Amino acid sequence: MQISNSDRAKVLVQALPYIQTHAGKTVVVKYGGSAMVDEVLKDAVMCDIVLMQLVGIRVVLVHGGGKEIDAMLKKVGKQSRFVDGMRCTDRETIDIVQMVLAGKVNKDLVQLLERHSGRAVGLCGLDDGMLRAEKLAAPEDLGYVGEITAVNPAPLNNATQNGYVPIVAPLAGGEHGEVYNINADVAAARIAAELKAEKLILMTDVRGLLRDKDDENTLIPVVNASEVPKLQKQGIITGGMIPKVDCCVDAVRRGVGRAHIIDGRIPHSILIELFSDEGIGTMFY
Amino acid sequence: MQISNSDRAKVLVQALPYIQTHAGKTVVVKYGGSAMVDEVLKDAVMCDIVLMQLVGIRVVLVHGGGKEIDAMLKKVGKQSRFVDGMRCTDRETIDIVQMVLAGKVNKDLVQLLERHSGRAVGLCGLDDGMLRAEKLAAPEDLGYVGEITAVNPAPLNNATQNGYVPIVAPLAGGEHGEVYNINADVAAARIAAELKAEKLILMTDVRGLLRDKDDENTLIPVVNASEVPKLQKQGIITGGMIPKVDCCVDAVRRGVGRAHIIDGRIPHSILIELFSDEGIGTMFY
Amino acid sequence: MQISNSDRAKVLVQALPYIQTHAGKTVVVKYGGSAMVDEVLKDAVMCDIVLMQLVGIRVVLVHGGGKEIDAMLKKVGKQSRFVDGMRCTDRETIDIVQMVLAGKVNKDLVQLLERHSGRAVGLCGLDDGMLRAEKLAAPEDLGYVGEITAVNPAPLNNATQNGYVPIVAPLAGGEHGEVYNINADVAAARIAAELKAEKLILMTDVRGLLRDKDDENTLIPVVNASEVPKLQKQGIITGGMIPKVDCCVDAVRRGVGRAHIIDGRIPHSILIELFSDEGIGTMFY
Amino acid sequence: MQISNSDRAKVLVQALPYIQTHAGKTVVVKYGGSAMVDEVLKDAVMCDIVLMQLVGIRVVLVHGGGKEIDAMLKKVGKQSRFVDGMRCTDRETIDIVQMVLAGKVNKDLVQLLERHSGRAVGLCGLDDGMLRAEKLAAPEDLGYVGEITAVNPAPLNNATQNGYVPIVAPLAGGEHGEVYNINADVAAARIAAELKAEKLILMTDVRGLLRDKDDENTLIPVVNASEVPKLQKQGIITGGMIPKVDCCVDAVRRGVGRAHIIDGRIPHSILIELFSDEGIGTMFY
Amino acid sequence: MQISNSDRAKVLVQALPYIQTHAGKTVVVKYGGSAMVDEVLKDAVMCDIVLMQLVGIRVVLVHGGGKEIDAMLKKVGKQSRFVDGMRCTDRETIDIVQMVLAGKVNKDLVQLLERHSGRAVGLCGLDDGMLRAEKLAAPEDLGYVGEITAVNPAPLNNATQNGYVPIVAPLAGGEHGEVYNINADVAAARIAAELKAEKLILMTDVRGLLRDKDDENTLIPVVNASEVPKLQKQGIITGGMIPKVDCCVDAVRRGVGRAHIIDGRIPHSILIELFSDEGIGTMFY
Amino acid sequence: MQISNSDRAKVLVQALPYIQTHAGKTVVVKYGGSAMVDEVLKDAVMCDIVLMQLVGIRVVLVHGGGKEIDAMLKKVGKQSRFVDGMRCTDRETIDIVQMVLAGKVNKDLVQLLERHSGRAVGLCGLDDGMLRAEKLAAPEDLGYVGEITAVNPAPLNNATQNGYVPIVAPLAGGEHGEVYNINADVAAARIAAELKAEKLILMTDVRGLLRDKDDENTLIPVVNASEVPKLQKQGIITGGMIPKVDCCVDAVRRGVGRAHIIDGRIPHSILIELFSDEGIGTMFY
Repeated sequence: MQISNSDRAKVLVQALPYIQTHAGKTVVVKYGGSAMVDEVLKDAVMCDIVLMQLVGIRVVLVHGGGKEIDAMLKKVGKQSRFVDGMRCTDRETIDIVQMVLAGKVNKDLVQLLERHSGRAVGLCGLDDGMLRAEKLAAPEDLGYVGEITAVNPAPLNNATQNGYVPIVAPLAGGEHGEVYNINADVAAARIAAELKAEKLILMTDVRGLLRDKDDENTLIPVVNASEVPKLQKQGIITGGMIPKVDCCVDAVRRGVGRAHIIDGRIPHSILIELFSDEGIGTMFY
Repeated sequence: MQISNSDRAKVLVQALPYIQTHAGKTVVVKYGGSAMVDEVLKDAVMCDIVLMQLVGIRVVLVHGGGKEIDAMLKKVGKQSRFVDGMRCTDRETIDIVQMVLAGKVNKDLVQLLERHSGRAVGLCGLDDGMLRAEKLAAPEDLGYVGEITAVNPAPLNNATQNGYVPIVAPLAGGEHGEVYNINADVAAARIAAELKAEKLILMTDVRGLLRDKDDENTLIPVVNASEVPKLQKQGIITGGMIPKVDCCVDAVRRGVGRAHIIDGRIPHSILIELFSDEGIGTMFY
Repeated sequence: MQISNSDRAKVLVQALPYIQTHAGKTVVVKYGGSAMVDEVLKDAVMCDIVLMQLVGIRVVLVHGGGKEIDAMLKKVGKQSRFVDGMRCTDRETIDIVQMVLAGKVNKDLVQLLERHSGRAVGLCGLDDGMLRAEKLAAPEDLGYVGEITAVNPAPLNNATQNGYVPIVAPLAGGEHGEVYNINADVAAARIAAELKAEKLILMTDVRGLLRDKDDENTLIPVVNASEVPKLQKQGIITGGMIPKVDCCVDAVRRGVGRAHIIDGRIPHSILIELFSDEGIGTMFY
Repeated sequence: MQISNSDRAKVLVQALPYIQTHAGKTVVVKYGGSAMVDEVLKDAVMCDIVLMQLVGIRVVLVHGGGKEIDAMLKKVGKQSRFVDGMRCTDRETIDIVQMVLAGKVNKDLVQLLERHSGRAVGLCGLDDGMLRAEKLAAPEDLGYVGEITAVNPAPLNNATQNGYVPIVAPLAGGEHGEVYNINADVAAARIAAELKAEKLILMTDVRGLLRDKDDENTLIPVVNASEVPKLQKQGIITGGMIPKVDCCVDAVRRGVGRAHIIDGRIPHSILIELFSDEGIGTMFY
Repeated sequence: MQISNSDRAKVLVQALPYIQTHAGKTVVVKYGGSAMVDEVLKDAVMCDIVLMQLVGIRVVLVHGGGKEIDAMLKKVGKQSRFVDGMRCTDRETIDIVQMVLAGKVNKDLVQLLERHSGRAVGLCGLDDGMLRAEKLAAPEDLGYVGEITAVNPAPLNNATQNGYVPIVAPLAGGEHGEVYNINADVAAARIAAELKAEKLILMTDVRGLLRDKDDENTLIPVVNASEVPKLQKQGIITGGMIPKVDCCVDAVRRGVGRAHIIDGRIPHSILIELFSDEGIGTMFY
Repeated sequence: MQISNSDRAKVLVQALPYIQTHAGKTVVVKYGGSAMVDEVLKDAVMCDIVLMQLVGIRVVLVHGGGKEIDAMLKKVGKQSRFVDGMRCTDRETIDIVQMVLAGKVNKDLVQLLERHSGRAVGLCGLDDGMLRAEKLAAPEDLGYVGEITAVNPAPLNNATQNGYVPIVAPLAGGEHGEVYNINADVAAARIAAELKAEKLILMTDVRGLLRDKDDENTLIPVVNASEVPKLQKQGIITGGMIPKVDCCVDAVRRGVGRAHIIDGRIPHSILIELFSDEGIGTMFY
């Protein structure tokens, strides 16, 4: 790379006020989409997280794993039915989901972060009863798809105080020992709220909220939570964007400083969001 | 039950000196065999662990999961070849092993212990680089079967200091980001050594070391580590007993106070070992 | 004893939820009556206290010593006059009382508990000004019989935090440097209130509160503090029971969780009360 | 008093270097003789101790009580036989000794110090097994007169760390639960050694070690421990001085900085020793 | 000096209750006038401060330096104009003021205290932004004469917690990086208020507030803050006394326990004020 | 600036391993030359220091101030004579030096760093007796030019532990209360040694050590301390470079990891040295 030493120094110095602002604060990142598939993007995210940790930010990473679940279900010859984008989850499926999320995706991320010199522990909502859930109320029976009823922040606080990035698989325990699959965006939002996080960052495969969903140049950079109903009425928030925006609004309402929908396809999008003036994606406050 | 209040009190009082002896010490339990399958035995083990934790013992639980791995491999249509009792583990197999151990068995145990009012976190050897391994040297290539090269006790100490029972799936990370399957007895022994544990307890499906392996009345209750070679020569330590005895001897040599092979088929065998005069199974010192 | 190992384990496990409930809480025991005279009972009480301490209960022991005081007074040729069950206490008598309680009974108990592997310090109400008193208002002059005006919990908290069972002789200091004899039940009740104890346990030589004081089968197991006036009117609470019940009611009113009158003649009555379902004696709440 | 404010200030300022020297150090005082009888002297000693505590000295007070024991023995019609200045102590006598020392003298001192705004707890050698003893080897059977075999400093350190002056009655526990009477000078010397005290101060009723025991002007202000045998041979150390000097020498040998025999009949002799240039009495180093 | 040992002891003992009262409290001393010029007085003040520190008082010393500033200004050939007793302070003058106060007077005092075995650090209002100021509003432009807008107690608390006496030069930082000269009495008063000090002591060259300013025998020893307006109307508080009294009243109003105007010409006037009954100078409450 | 967000992120990520290496370590910077004069360079240095502090480096800044001293001496009409580059320092001169260094340069730097959101306290060698010195042995009498005899790291450690950058003026106290001027390079080197710093950085107005002092392209990037005598013999280390190189060698010999002579005229030269591969200037190890 041909960046001069002088330019390097300038970049570091210009990042300074952002680092000062975020030091000691908590940032919850929902990690998913392309950024979890593409090897280059994966490395970039790991670097971003290690850097955040080094400058004193308490990072919590919540991950999804839809593709890995699909692959495993396929392997055992099982096909999922989806209702409104949610997987109907029978007993056999939830077992596979748990195995893939908490056993494979989660621990692989732990190892990957360690290989970038980060320090991580892999947890799921079952550890120290971190996430409690009940069956999601829905018109159609979705099986073991859960709705969070309580969040215990103790295992996350213990992890960050011991210098770890807690990496969280979005599973939750039910009252009778059953396990529920939880939407990763929702889990991240609720955890962010419980930890009184400064920021919730949802990594997606879109630029952010677009005024015209087919034109990436129509990005809406900043949304006040109170404008959301109007934007929904105008048809600007639609489809898969609805639950993501709901998570952001819910988090902000519960005391999270700011919530962001950012484009995980751009390398180092988290760093750009945190340490530059322009920001990236759409911010809800 | 018809135990009188007076007898109850006597039992508690007679347990007193044992509790005093063990309080504040570390006990590493390898959990496996029937005790992991039978529901009544499982509940009994959970009770034992919660009680140990309550009277001030630092408990670390290392578990196996051979049966669950077999079931899952079968589900995906894969058959394992065994060499000297060890599973040949190709890339696809180690993925399944990781999923089952770290994702299913491990987190199910966490949840089960929590339901008995214990507090647990589910870890594996990848968390904070707890277990490092290299490929096991063997006459035949066994694939991702590993030999431990280093143990990082930090995540275990953090867990016990925060009041958790760490439950450990015996996986380890390799130098190049690969994952190794580790024998659970060996993992428990090495962890016990690293933590300078007072006791290592291996739960098995036999009474202990028998002078005549077909006669349960020939139990050898106590073995000095130095007698082991002679016992092996005499044919008393044979077959599956050899690696278990090796683990015990290795642990004792590395500074663990005592190592025990106990009969997990007896309910509350851990409590009986810890809190009574007679002990149970075979003790190595 | 012919209790099987299996039964022993069951007893320990069944004690588990009670241990969990009481761990970290404070229990104040008034120790007196037969349990302070009979050697077998004394040993049993010491065991009970050490066990409580081991499972994380903060125990405070307040003792009486009427018999030892009588013996010593007799030795120096002095006879006590009693008014309403209270000893008229002149200057010479209070000196003897102080010597016997704080010097003999108290320190002997400290030594006895240490011999059962407990750790204790012997305090009286004069240490760090723990108990302040003024002359008890009474129709007839009782001399140095005092009424507590203030409790300083510091020496008790320091003792329990350092891992000791504080054993307390019920003496109190007056404004002008004089010393008062304090009823041990009352001292225990006030100390329990000051420490926001979970439980106050008064060891007596009766089964508890009996509906018919001549029939031990008429035990009233549970009494709501508000029912006491009625029970008194009905003649069920009479004689020596009146001040004991008053202590219990006073303690409960001042914030103690529960107050118990138990039968100290039954070995391990404290353990039975704490660690079994049935309880023993009469509980006030 | 006609000391001017200016002189008062000078006195305080001249005490400064001594205060700086002693702050944070431990001083063990054996309290006895006239200073424990005369009311004016008693008040003066209490003031001295409170002042020491305030300027950051850790004070431990070990007291005797021969006169009070004599009075009580007389009251119960018991006469002591003395052999070489030591009281033959049968079972009945040791009970009286314990009562008087640990119950009366000790707790009265606690109360007296509190009335001078000091903070104290009254302990004896039985508390937390502070002093262990066996029967003193002697040509004639002296009964329960003990020789210290071990000192547990924990209860003393706990007391001073919590801001208390521990006041110690010189009793010790034997192997079989018996109690021994310990010479207070010896107890103070052994405690000082165990606490690595800066100073041991023995309050006596003489000026110090005199070259001519009938002439108070022949005080020997400083003695090197190694000179003691010669002084003894010369007949300068004789009679009751022998055991006191032995205590001082023993303390110094065991690591105590300096040991002093001072004249308790002079008011504030401790302060004069600690905070002035001239010192007072005889110092052993 | 001919003060007897016995009198020395009495003085120490009589200081006891005062020491007990002040231990652990904060005392802010404005140091100035003759006490900063006369070598004997300077030594006396240093002794007083070290003694205060030793008996557990947290001391903060704020100093002036008018004479040293005058001398330096003269050296560089600059003359100050004074308006209402305040120096018109142009850019060149404030530089000299800063150099002399923070560089010379301050660090010389640090060294002097160290030579009396005290431990000190020399700070000014610029350190950790301790004092913030804006230009003093005045009829005439006084240049860099400031009015405190905020006090940051962190550097003072860090210093006292680390065992130092912070010695403070009364300079303050402005919003645009400019430096202001602050009246030392005012700085001391505001710092005392921010630290919730027990006492503010202003050392002056007068006896205190005099009913007749020409007669030192008319000292008013105690003034209630509410009486001040009346005293001012009566012409008792006039001239240079007005701002000093205002500082005292302001400090008391902001929560300082007591404020004192004392005569720094009397050696050890601080000690006399703190540790004797009579006090010295005028106390405001 | 036209650096793209993507490039910014890359720069941050590439700085990561350097940040990881230095976090928690101590770096002592000697600040002087052009970097203390040019406003742009001054701002750049302040940014560098704040950034270092933020990523967890403990920074200590030692400054010179020759130009400011010259200016002030000129103002008071005093001329300095120099011997071997060292200023002959009479009593009047050392007073000016102290005022300028500790009062003006030092506190101005504190304020400047605070304005860049850093947190600093301004100390000199007199604070808590940080630097002790005696008169420098020299052929000609140089007056108050000192040689360091002892370094007390306490005030520096207290400052860094409380989150401050200690900024140090190179003055030292003598045995008799006199003050010495210390060469800033030497002070920095000795402080670095005492703190077991990872790095000593001397900011100069040259590129580093040049093989041909007239050709900046002949920079020697790395020098082993043992090669220095040879380089000196070869005439490569000459003139003003000699004492600087001696400081580096001395620091390395006393345990400092690495010592650097860097070019302070290049903006952000410290950052470039710390956070890039190439380094800058000459490194001694």
